[in-house]
Amino acid sequence: MNYFDFKIIAGDGGARAGILPTPHGDIETPCFMPVGTRATVKTLSPRDLSEAGAQVVLANAYHLFFRPGADKIASRGGLHRFMSWGRPLLTDSGGYQVFSLGPAARASAGGVEFKSIYDGSRHFFTPELSVRVQEQLGADIIMCLDQCPPADADPGELRQAVERTAAWAARCRARHRRRDQLLMGIVQGGTDAKLRRESTARTIDVGFDGYAIGGLSVGEERPAMLETLALTAALLPRERPRYFMGLGDPAGIMAAVAAGVDMFDCVLPTRLARHGAAFTSGGRLNMRGAALARKDEPIEAGCRCYACRNFSRAYIRHLVTLEEILGLHLLSLHNVTFLLDLTRKAREAIIQGRFQEIRNCLMRPT
Amino acid sequence: MNYFDFKIIAGDGGARAGILPTPHGDIETPCFMPVGTRATVKTLSPRDLSEAGAQVVLANAYHLFFRPGADKIASRGGLHRFMSWGRPLLTDSGGYQVFSLGPAARASAGGVEFKSIYDGSRHFFTPELSVRVQEQLGADIIMCLDQCPPADADPGELRQAVERTAAWAARCRARHRRRDQLLMGIVQGGTDAKLRRESTARTIDVGFDGYAIGGLSVGEERPAMLETLALTAALLPRERPRYFMGLGDPAGIMAAVAAGVDMFDCVLPTRLARHGAAFTSGGRLNMRGAALARKDEPIEAGCRCYACRNFSRAYIRHLVTLEEILGLHLLSLHNVTFLLDLTRKAREAIIQGRFQEIRNCLMRPT
Repeated sequence: MNYFDFKIIAGDGGARAGILPTPHGDIETPCFMPVGTRATVKTLSPRDLSEAGAQVVLANAYHLFFRPGADKIASRGGLHRFMSWGRPLLTDSGGYQVFSLGPAARASAGGVEFKSIYDGSRHFFTPELSVRVQEQLGADIIMCLDQCPPADADPGELRQAVERTAAWAARCRARHRRRDQLLMGIVQGGTDAKLRRESTARTIDVGFDGYAIGGLSVGEERPAMLETLALTAALLPRERPRYFMGLGDPAGIMAAVAAGVDMFDCVLPTRLARHGAAFTSGGRLNMRGAALARKDEPIEAGCRCYACRNFSRAYIRHLVTLEEILGLHLLSLHNVTFLLDLTRKAREAIIQGRFQEIRNCLMRPT
Repeated sequence: MNYFDFKIIAGDGGARAGILPTPHGDIETPCFMPVGTRATVKTLSPRDLSEAGAQVVLANAYHLFFRPGADKIASRGGLHRFMSWGRPLLTDSGGYQVFSLGPAARASAGGVEFKSIYDGSRHFFTPELSVRVQEQLGADIIMCLDQCPPADADPGELRQAVERTAAWAARCRARHRRRDQLLMGIVQGGTDAKLRRESTARTIDVGFDGYAIGGLSVGEERPAMLETLALTAALLPRERPRYFMGLGDPAGIMAAVAAGVDMFDCVLPTRLARHGAAFTSGGRLNMRGAALARKDEPIEAGCRCYACRNFSRAYIRHLVTLEEILGLHLLSLHNVTFLLDLTRKAREAIIQGRFQEIRNCLMRPT
């Protein structure tokens, strides 16, 4: 089997189930990819992730460029070995971080000038540098450098982001050498249908083996997000994997699967855990609630995660209210498992031709 | 086999190997007991502890009395069930915390008046209350309420602590009802040989199925600690388990095993982890050191812990310098495993009659 030769094995309406082969193993889609920004998914070890059913883990080129340095990771044998994760990895280009973390980022046609959040030093990121950094890290899937404007960006800013993203995509493509990495193009354009169509067409023109939908889930209204998502997914080549960047709420993921998206990532499960909240099929649960102190049941009945198999809501509440790290760990594990299970069940339903039928039930315990 | 019927299966000089049966399983001694103050060993799950070889875990009556409350834990089925730890548990009486955590603790013959560190509310702890709280928690081994003076206490304070500890021991013994719990007496007396002898004799007079050596490792000089330890251990009944409270440095533990101590506890392994340091056979290792960024070897070659089996010093340094929780977790796991392994190897050496011979080698990799 050729690497990155995406195979769709079943479809149900717009939703599809697929297999994406990579040098570190197959990825079964739809799938959720836990985010390990600085080469660690917060509070979770690789074996926690394996047990939870993670197939792909993300890491971030921006953060690893500064700490410990991409060259340092390359010297240690690459990112897989460095973080002891033998399965597929995806690195984000750093584009989102360059614009969102630095107040003084200045983009030009050439690239972006910005200050490091680590020490304030000035740097200039280019498409070429981003690809080189990602080649040094050695993830299976890497991303083009893009410009991702906020939801309240004005039309001029949106248009410029589309222009730059397209130009940079071509430069990333031209610079990329490693044949054992899938380079994905990214579509921008905010929620402007015309710009989305243009950005999609221009990204496809450059030509990639996978496409990401960027610039959504950045603060826009839900209906506009869903509409733009559906529009964009429908324009992308059917035979290539589609990745919706930064979407982590369960209902949103189900809607995107229905629209034909294959891959998802988000920091939401671990961030929610830091806020003391858990995903459940009935919605988010505040684990600090006083009533939970008398509850012997797990966070979610029927959940197969280590936290739900072993601990009561009462105990986890005790840990969370005292800010004990085990509480943070157990909530992170549960929340990540919840999204991994949700996408796995969606996949099974698609294969059985029952996705449309049971989509709403997937948010109930099985 | 009767619970708490301690059996010495081998001796080597003063050192001995034993088995202490409890309602939740046998404890093989010498052993190190990880400290889970608030019903969690910081950053470690019960399965981490099982895998590391922990046989007994400590929890603290003071902290659990306030959060979530001993009655709350009793309502949830007791401490074992609450924290999902099916093996032996030991609770400390809260005496040490009452005196060390509250600046305004006032002891009288009746008990101690103090302010809660959680909300400043005033409370009065008595021997009877401490036993009742520990009966509600339901650990296999519980401790008498004692008065533990600091290393710089004046002679009058030391004497008073011996008096009160003896009187409170008798009251704890009289109040204790649960036959499925071993109640241990505690010897005080600082490093004053005369007071130690008196405290030991008076504690033995009350009569317990196990004895703890308290009031050491509280800031005194090492030679005085070792001398007092040897003196006290030699006076305790040979056929009862001996527990040295609060000792966690590897060399100190080996010295205490040589003196005939069976059980140890300390927060040092998890506290060291929070300071970014690791136990190694060559001494403590500062995991923040810049040179570690190029090291592919594990923290300790040959260590069987999950951290050493999977991660390089370079990766753990990366995590620790960025204050990623996985770094704290891996260091805690390693440090706890290190002391568990040290006492396990000491036990094996005692059984083989080689403890005196290899005692110094135990600090080298095996």
